[in-house]
Parts: sequence; C-alpha cells; structure tokens
Amino acid sequence: MRTQVGIIGAGPAGLLLSHLLARAGIDSVVLEARSRDYVERRVRAGVLEHPTVELLREVGLAERLDREGMPHEGISLRFDGGDHRIDFADLVGRGITVYGQQEVVKDLIAARLRDGGDLRFEVSDVTLDGLADAPVIGFTDADGQRQELRCDVVAGCDGFHGISRGAFEPQMFDREYPYAWLGILAKAAPTQHELAYANHPRGFALYSMRSPEITRLYLQVPPDTDAGTWSDAQIWDELGVRLAADGFTLNEGPLIEKSVTGMRSVVAEPMRHGRLFLAGDAAHIVPPTGAKGMNLAIADVRVLAEALTDYLSHGDESGVDAYSDTCLRRVWRAEHFSWWMTSMLHVSPDPDPFAHRLQLSQLRYTVTSRAAATSLAENYVGLPHGENR
Amino acid sequence: MRTQVGIIGAGPAGLLLSHLLARAGIDSVVLEARSRDYVERRVRAGVLEHPTVELLREVGLAERLDREGMPHEGISLRFDGGDHRIDFADLVGRGITVYGQQEVVKDLIAARLRDGGDLRFEVSDVTLDGLADAPVIGFTDADGQRQELRCDVVAGCDGFHGISRGAFEPQMFDREYPYAWLGILAKAAPTQHELAYANHPRGFALYSMRSPEITRLYLQVPPDTDAGTWSDAQIWDELGVRLAADGFTLNEGPLIEKSVTGMRSVVAEPMRHGRLFLAGDAAHIVPPTGAKGMNLAIADVRVLAEALTDYLSHGDESGVDAYSDTCLRRVWRAEHFSWWMTSMLHVSPDPDPFAHRLQLSQLRYTVTSRAAATSLAENYVGLPHGENR
Repeated sequence: MRTQVGIIGAGPAGLLLSHLLARAGIDSVVLEARSRDYVERRVRAGVLEHPTVELLREVGLAERLDREGMPHEGISLRFDGGDHRIDFADLVGRGITVYGQQEVVKDLIAARLRDGGDLRFEVSDVTLDGLADAPVIGFTDADGQRQELRCDVVAGCDGFHGISRGAFEPQMFDREYPYAWLGILAKAAPTQHELAYANHPRGFALYSMRSPEITRLYLQVPPDTDAGTWSDAQIWDELGVRLAADGFTLNEGPLIEKSVTGMRSVVAEPMRHGRLFLAGDAAHIVPPTGAKGMNLAIADVRVLAEALTDYLSHGDESGVDAYSDTCLRRVWRAEHFSWWMTSMLHVSPDPDPFAHRLQLSQLRYTVTSRAAATSLAENYVGLPHGENR
Repeated sequence: MRTQVGIIGAGPAGLLLSHLLARAGIDSVVLEARSRDYVERRVRAGVLEHPTVELLREVGLAERLDREGMPHEGISLRFDGGDHRIDFADLVGRGITVYGQQEVVKDLIAARLRDGGDLRFEVSDVTLDGLADAPVIGFTDADGQRQELRCDVVAGCDGFHGISRGAFEPQMFDREYPYAWLGILAKAAPTQHELAYANHPRGFALYSMRSPEITRLYLQVPPDTDAGTWSDAQIWDELGVRLAADGFTLNEGPLIEKSVTGMRSVVAEPMRHGRLFLAGDAAHIVPPTGAKGMNLAIADVRVLAEALTDYLSHGDESGVDAYSDTCLRRVWRAEHFSWWMTSMLHVSPDPDPFAHRLQLSQLRYTVTSRAAATSLAENYVGLPHGENR
C-alpha cells in the first residue's frame, strides 16, 4: 500500500491535515487505534479560537459549527468576591466559539468520508521505519491483517501517548503542576452565556457549557484525586462555594461524566525528524486553563499542510525545513499563556502568601488595565495564524 | 520637645513627608541616624516615574530636577541577540526621568532647611512608646544628649533595616531571589540615551546612566558574591558580552563605585499600628529591576500627607483609617511588576529549560504585541497616583 502522507491518529490534527492535503491534491491515509465511535464521543476541549473557526470556514468545515457553535464575546474572572468581565469584542474585535472537540471530529470524519478519504480505524501495533528517506508504516488492521503503508512523509498526530514521538529523541521541556481538574458534564441548562474562571481561596473553578442543555464544570483538586471519591452532592456544593458571585445561580442536574484531568506542560523540540513531522499533542501539551490544546494542533497542521504541499507538489523544501521553528513560536506563546492563566488562577497546595498576593494584584490589574485585559483577550481568542510572536 | 508628626528617617520618604506637611501647615521633626553628608551621597535608585516627577513639580521641588534630570521616552529589552525598544512616549504618552535618589535627597534637604524645617541628623538609640494614643520618640542627639519628642503621630520612614517596623508585628510577605546585582558607577560617558535590560544566557545585565559623564551598570551575580572578587577588567568584559547588540559600544572608564545588592521582595501588612504609620522601604522593598523602590516611597507619603492633614487639621480619620489599604494596592502592583520584570530577565542558577523558553516567549511577545508593550510601559512609567489597580 502506498500514499503520499501517512497520518497516524484521527484526532482533530490528523483528520484536518488529511482534509487540507486532499484540497491541495495530495493523497493521505489516516490510521487510528480507536474506533470511529470512540473518537466521535471522546469529550475533550470545547473552545475554538477565532483563527481556528476562520480556517474551518475557509476549508468548508463550518456548516454545522456555524449553526450549533456558541459564539462568545468574552469571559469573566471571579476573585475576591467580585465578577469581572473581559470583553473580547470591545478589546480585540474578535471572539471565541464554544463547540466540542468531538463535534469537530465528527464533522471532519464526515467530510473525509464524503470526499473519499482513506481512514482506517482500530489499527494496532503501529511501527515506523525508513524515516530518513523512505518511510514505511507497519500496522495490523481492524481485521487482524498485517499491513505496510509506504509513504513520502509521515505525520505523527497520535497525541501525547502516541508512538510517533518515540521514533526519535527530541529534547523535552516539561512542567508539572501540583493540582488537577475534576471535570463534570451535567444535564443542566447553563445559567450564563459565557465562561467564568474563578480564583477562590478553596481552589480554582471553571464554569463553562457545551450546549444550551449541557453545563461543563471544573474544580481544582489534588493531582492524585480519584473522581469516585467525590459525590455529586459534594461537587455541586463545592462549585456553589467557589463560583459564588452576585446574581449568579448554579443550575444543578444529573452528571453525565465525571473525570480527573492532570495539568502538565510539555514541549518536544524539534517537531521534525527526517520525514516524520509531529503535530498537536504528539509534540506538545498545555494545561487546559487557556483552552489552547486543540487550537494549537489545528495551527500546526495548517503550517504542515502548506509545507507538505510545497514539498510534495513542487519539490520546495523551505516549508518543511522551517516547519518546526515556525510552529514552535506559536507553541511557546500558547505554553506561556496557558502557564500564566494556570498560575494566576489556581491555589498552591503549599501555602505561599506572597504568591497569593501577587495573584490578586495580577487579577485586579488584568481587569482594570485596558492593556492587560487586551493582552489576555488577544491570546485567548488566538493570535492570527502566521503571526510571528 | 513636641511636634505634630515625628518622622523617623531622612530619606526621600521622610523628607518629602515633612515638606508636604509643612505646605499644609503641619509641624514635623525629622530624625536621621546618619549624617547629612552621608544621606546626600548615598547612591541608590535613579529612575523617577512620571507621577513622581509631576508631584515634585507640583510642590516646588523640581527646579534642579527639570534642569539636570534626563527625560527618557523608552527602554530597550535585549535578548536572543536583538535589541527591542519599548517606546513609552508612543505607547502611553508619558516617560521617566533619570535623576539620582541622592539628588532628590539634596533638593529635599535644601528645601526643608530653606523653609525652616527641623531636621536632626546623627541621632541614635531611637525608641518608640505610647503608639496607641500619645507617641513619644526617645533618641540621643548628635551631641550625645538624650531627648524626648512627643507627637500626635509617628511616621516610620527609616527603611528596611530601621526600627519602626519592629514596634509591632505586621504580617510579612517575602520572596528571596537566587541572584544579586553587582553594580558599578563608572566615569564614562554613556554611549546611548536610554536604559537597556538584557537577558543573556550568562545572566542579566542592565545598562543605565546617572549623568552625561557617569554610566551606571549592573551584572547578575550569585547572591553571596563579594564585589572585591571581580576585577575591573572582568566586569567590563562581562558587560561587553551580556550587553552586546548591533551598533552598541560600551564606553569604559574608571570605576567610582562597585557594590553588590541583594534581590528581595518584602511587604509588611498592615502599614499602620495605632499612631505609627510606615512608609517606603520601612514597609516594603522590591528588587531593583522595575525601578520602583523610591517611587513607591513617594506614593506612600503623598497618601500619608493628605491623610494626616485631614486628621490633624480637621479631625477626619477616614484617610488615616484607609492609609494602609490604599497604599497596599499600589505596593502590590509594584511588587508584582518588579517580580515579573525580575523573573523575565534573570537566569535561574538551577537550569530550568522550560522556564527559560517561557522567558524568551514572554520577551518576544512583550516586544511584538502593542498590548503587552503598553502593559510594561504603563507600569514602568508609573500608574497615576490615586488609581485603584
């Protein structure tokens, strides 16, 4: 079997890459360890940056997104008993769209299949060889048959726990945080339109939503927390305390999901090894506070699709040679922003009164200085693709 | 002996407070442990914020400052081999003025003596009693005579190592930094007009100046450094390496001073105890990176002078009751800004590649985003006095 681009992973990165390449007339095959059903139901991020939405529109993937996505023109920061709105529309003239990652994945799979894309689910034992000049991806298909996929280049879009990054030894940059998020999905209509990020003495909490019927809520918990030890009643009580603000009410409802997410920052450098290109979580992860994970993956594959098109269609290697450096600029901007949001909003488990006072000053400043609020806003809604920050 | 306000310390805070009170018709006596000659020669900060300069003009203290001070409309950040200017004038329409703290002190002493102010130098063994309702300051005067100064209130303006803060037990907030500054004054004409802050892999360096003939330079060094272990030649070599940039030359010259300054953030809360009010370094210190120390002291005494005037002239206690909270807002803003500048620009002695990448991303962002540059600029030139950030 042969293709131009062998793509490992059918998350947003791998699927969008395959879609963008197809539009440029380049063949690809997408290999995914999980079933289609699994990836279409996997609940992950839910905030699309402005440039993400623009790109999805540009490439014909936004029909349902534009109908069902929830445009937000701001967020609020809650601390010291007050709620302070950061008005993205006023500050930077752009906003975000709340639309679940699994919805993006559904749209991408539907588009690839409609366009005759080659997606292979439930593959296993993936191997990578010949990355220097003639890549071969070995895998066992869903029927148990061993297969070989020969290709010009490989795109490793298989996430943080995937096998692609293990094919070489990039330098790893790492930061662990001494807290995690207990996340719940609740069948309860959101009581407010926009996200609220709360810094409360008992810990961080985040109010968000996935649809007009589903609320998505998070609580800072210790990193080793077993979600099962939190009863539903405890969760609602704690959310009520941490999210409290004048005029705010919390709509309770049955819990659809309850899980704990670790908080970590990791970057692999470089993002290329011979004919292997890493994109998305395979190369970098961010703590979820800045809502940057999926958006970074999408920014990566936009750069990669253009670079591979130049290379495979015109023999121009400048794009692939610049790929890692180009992406890493945006990656580090997002890493910094995510670290900054995370550090500003969470309560350290080791009491650090000096750091806590700095947090409060930072928060007060962010909501009273137009420059500081604009800085948060432009990072949150997403710096334009291709900008060199 | 009796006065309305007993002021301990003849630094910028104590002297300016005495001046402001005199303008409002309130008597004070200033007690200082050192000699007049010593305080007039003590080399400290050299950057005056815009609101500091405005205040000094307002109260008739800027005649020489306006003649000899060097107005700056920006600074530059040097990293990754490039020099990037932050244009304060363009970003916030205000600038700073380089004018040594000892010059401010000379002007203040001259003004107080001209106006008949009561300044006592070389006093020793200062004691504080009766702070609840009838303060008495005991001291031994320059002639060795024991004296008692009865007053309505005491202003503790005696710096971080002074005795005032020890009169009660404020909560202390503290951060030590794992580096210090080796500072030199050199008889060498500055080769550029504005300050340059450099983040170099070998450590931070700062290029600044005190006059058209005197350059002021700093190098990040380990905290326990003995200044004597650095030869003049080594200092110039290291400055040359860390400050290198296209078109930049370093003018060398004889060293007038060479000393090591520790880097620490400390805040005492509250800043009031009964009839004792702390101001300036007695209540808080910042690392020098943000050039905020003297400016905060001046902001404190502006608030204190107004509060004491309302209290002593009209019996209105609202100002003195609000004094600590009012000042601490600005104090924590300055603490945060100083910590932020310090963290962004210094090299950690423990290699932390993740943190180093965050620094570089933060620096790149600060020099490419107008919002981020404005945020630096508005903090550096000084948020307007009385603004509640």
